[in-house]
Amino acid sequence: MSLWINNQWLDGAGDQFQSLNPYDGSVVWQGQAATTAQVEAAVIAAEAAFVAWRNTTLNHRVQVIERFAQLVQQHQLQLAGVIAAETGKPLWESTTEVAAMIAKVALSLQAYHERTGTRQRQQVETTMVVRHRPLGVMAVFGPYNFPAHLPNGHIIPALLAGNTVVFKPSELTPNTAQLMCHLWQQAGISSGVINLVQGGRLTGAALAAAAGVDGVLFTGSANTGHLLHQQFAGQPQKMLALEMGGNNPLVVGQQYGELDAAVYTIIQSAFLSAGQRCTCARRLYIAVGKAGDELLTRLVTVSSQLIVGDPFATPAPFIGPLISNSAAEQMMENQQQLIAAGGIALLAATRGQGAIVTPAIIDVSAVSELADEEYFGPLLQISRYDDFTQAVVSANQTRYGLAAGLISTDEQQWQYFVEHIRAGIVNRNRPLTGACGDAPFGGPGASGNLRPSAYYAADYCAYPMASIEAEQLQLPVQLAPGVSLN
Amino acid sequence: MSLWINNQWLDGAGDQFQSLNPYDGSVVWQGQAATTAQVEAAVIAAEAAFVAWRNTTLNHRVQVIERFAQLVQQHQLQLAGVIAAETGKPLWESTTEVAAMIAKVALSLQAYHERTGTRQRQQVETTMVVRHRPLGVMAVFGPYNFPAHLPNGHIIPALLAGNTVVFKPSELTPNTAQLMCHLWQQAGISSGVINLVQGGRLTGAALAAAAGVDGVLFTGSANTGHLLHQQFAGQPQKMLALEMGGNNPLVVGQQYGELDAAVYTIIQSAFLSAGQRCTCARRLYIAVGKAGDELLTRLVTVSSQLIVGDPFATPAPFIGPLISNSAAEQMMENQQQLIAAGGIALLAATRGQGAIVTPAIIDVSAVSELADEEYFGPLLQISRYDDFTQAVVSANQTRYGLAAGLISTDEQQWQYFVEHIRAGIVNRNRPLTGACGDAPFGGPGASGNLRPSAYYAADYCAYPMASIEAEQLQLPVQLAPGVSLN
Repeated sequence: MSLWINNQWLDGAGDQFQSLNPYDGSVVWQGQAATTAQVEAAVIAAEAAFVAWRNTTLNHRVQVIERFAQLVQQHQLQLAGVIAAETGKPLWESTTEVAAMIAKVALSLQAYHERTGTRQRQQVETTMVVRHRPLGVMAVFGPYNFPAHLPNGHIIPALLAGNTVVFKPSELTPNTAQLMCHLWQQAGISSGVINLVQGGRLTGAALAAAAGVDGVLFTGSANTGHLLHQQFAGQPQKMLALEMGGNNPLVVGQQYGELDAAVYTIIQSAFLSAGQRCTCARRLYIAVGKAGDELLTRLVTVSSQLIVGDPFATPAPFIGPLISNSAAEQMMENQQQLIAAGGIALLAATRGQGAIVTPAIIDVSAVSELADEEYFGPLLQISRYDDFTQAVVSANQTRYGLAAGLISTDEQQWQYFVEHIRAGIVNRNRPLTGACGDAPFGGPGASGNLRPSAYYAADYCAYPMASIEAEQLQLPVQLAPGVSLN
Repeated sequence: MSLWINNQWLDGAGDQFQSLNPYDGSVVWQGQAATTAQVEAAVIAAEAAFVAWRNTTLNHRVQVIERFAQLVQQHQLQLAGVIAAETGKPLWESTTEVAAMIAKVALSLQAYHERTGTRQRQQVETTMVVRHRPLGVMAVFGPYNFPAHLPNGHIIPALLAGNTVVFKPSELTPNTAQLMCHLWQQAGISSGVINLVQGGRLTGAALAAAAGVDGVLFTGSANTGHLLHQQFAGQPQKMLALEMGGNNPLVVGQQYGELDAAVYTIIQSAFLSAGQRCTCARRLYIAVGKAGDELLTRLVTVSSQLIVGDPFATPAPFIGPLISNSAAEQMMENQQQLIAAGGIALLAATRGQGAIVTPAIIDVSAVSELADEEYFGPLLQISRYDDFTQAVVSANQTRYGLAAGLISTDEQQWQYFVEHIRAGIVNRNRPLTGACGDAPFGGPGASGNLRPSAYYAADYCAYPMASIEAEQLQLPVQLAPGVSLN
């Protein structure tokens, strides 16, 4: 029973597909994709549920959402296990993903009130009111790297605002999505308010094309995001919020402070989640000279000793496998391309069991034309620089603009960096992979369409309705020129 | 000298065109359109000015903008006269447009801080900061109906956030734009921060296509807005904010209160600015029965006596001509189409001097299929209804969603209306043409792309940059699993 439409669990009628544990290859989930007709049924269910859900009180919606959060809390071990088995993320990290899901509820409610909600002021006998209204049916496209937290970060604000949802998870993580929806059902959400359709590209295209969809909340690859943007051309009334990738630079200043803390911060930035976070550092800029040499040597040593392995192992690994064997092969191919172009492998990635790829550190200083690609894995490109301002120019040489970081104790360098870097997440002396729950998330360029999510998700889940209200009509003291009531 | 590029006034090298006074046909302005090369030069000037302008202090930008506002104040009679001559709006109304321009400065600064700006909080040794960053070069497309206030409402927030601007006014109102830019120059704004290109469709297409444009702030017709949306397909990185039209319903309840106040409110809603406001009521729903009959009779009488004439006349008219003879002809044709389809002219529009069209009131209750078109002039369609909830259903039957109003003393009707109507401006017992300066403006559907302007213009003029900052690196008390620094 892979689909959940109007509170009924159904089998998909499309192609069969499976989700595999990327470490041991075992089958985690199997089922059939939703056909176009089934996707449309899900959208119709969401449309039918919309007006009643919109017109419930905020309090009612909060109650249902909080019941869901309590169920997530109660099932956190189960959910973390499902995430770990399906994505290959270590169990400890999958547990942090579940915690982020729970935290999303309070943050979204705070954002709802601060960014949207209702406010009013009185002006003599007239009241000026700004309310916010839901858009209707939101199609939520989830990614595989945070298969629970990221779609949840769209679903919670969408529901709070009064929208209904059709959720299409990544075809690589159907099991996580299914468990989430079981918890929503257990929380007692009304029929049709959330619907689940499983499947790959065809299912996604059918959902994006469905006439009843009023908005699309997408987290995924830049390639798919750009296709969606094409698909929605000439339909300005459909809200499209795209969160895509990054080719994120991390610049290390000449004075970076304590060596091991710098190394640790770089490793957390580049290799956490096996490099499968969209905020991961992909390009590391290190000054030429002794301090830089020392840093790089130590970085290679520590990275070579990171434990990479079974997500469920004790003691726990730092990272598990990539999401799939083909992703692992892609990473090895990318490494090969960089080396062929003149890159020097300071630490070469190797394949291990299943989709395991160990971290790679490639010095690309000598590569004349670097591809501006997001290598979505544990592959860090090093560029040595002479001049800090030139390093910032190089850091900005990307069509993306998601995240950028500086490791430096030099206050002036930070001032320069923050004034010149072009990115939506800009951290100093902290891992790039850290982002605040109560801050907006997203970046310019090919990283999205300037509809920031996280704390600003409230913005794209509602449109404002501005009112001037009076209980009675009133003639002004003086009529407009040229009007006579005689 | 029709173009202002990098602080130089230049002649356009494109086709010659004129702006005419729509009442007496006199030539208000003539010049040549900007060619594609000139448009690109303007964009390059704005790009070149961007980094320096972005990195000025907010205080500096506010000072320049306030000097501009002071100059507008000093030249308010001149500017109102230019607007009146070029658009045909009565001088008294053109003066209110100038006042709105001045008020925009303080409102935009308030919105800048509330919606964007900078905020931070401390968490042990880490500071969480949210800054907002300008997008770059903003192309501002102005409409003819508020040729000063509406582009000004994009330009001020864009500049405050640190963007630079290329402004293409409507080809029907070049003179107003030229005077505005002269005032900006007098205010001492740095070279290239604002640039003016004049021209029609070709000039606009060249501007939208220019590679250096990072965002488009458009107010205009739904048709052009949809074409722009098509043109930007596959370029999610370019911010597109569309403010388009409406086919706005105004519903009168069975209990509407004082007769003349109701009539006055309807007239202000439907005929102010000769019906050339995007918030004007186009469709009026009146209950069948005696109270409705009375209202309609009185509405026709008072509307027939409105003074329509020379925008500069004393005593002043309520409305002047439409923007052009072709707009006037279009309105007469629309009236003819409605009558041919079965509409009954309770008050028939007539042509007067120049582009004068007197108000029309057409009962379309018997028309089976009404076109969902925005008739941008003094043409009000009446539908009689039996049932209030059915009237709300009919009111919502539009692809647009800009404005909607209720005239009713019945509190329950208002509750129902506000919960079921789909529009961005929803007023009760006040003219639909009134909108609050400190409220967002825009609506769902074909009225825009859900990038509300006015008080929310700050949102689309900047992207958020979220930072986690620390002066020093820090190793956590406990390293992540699988990492060893030995």
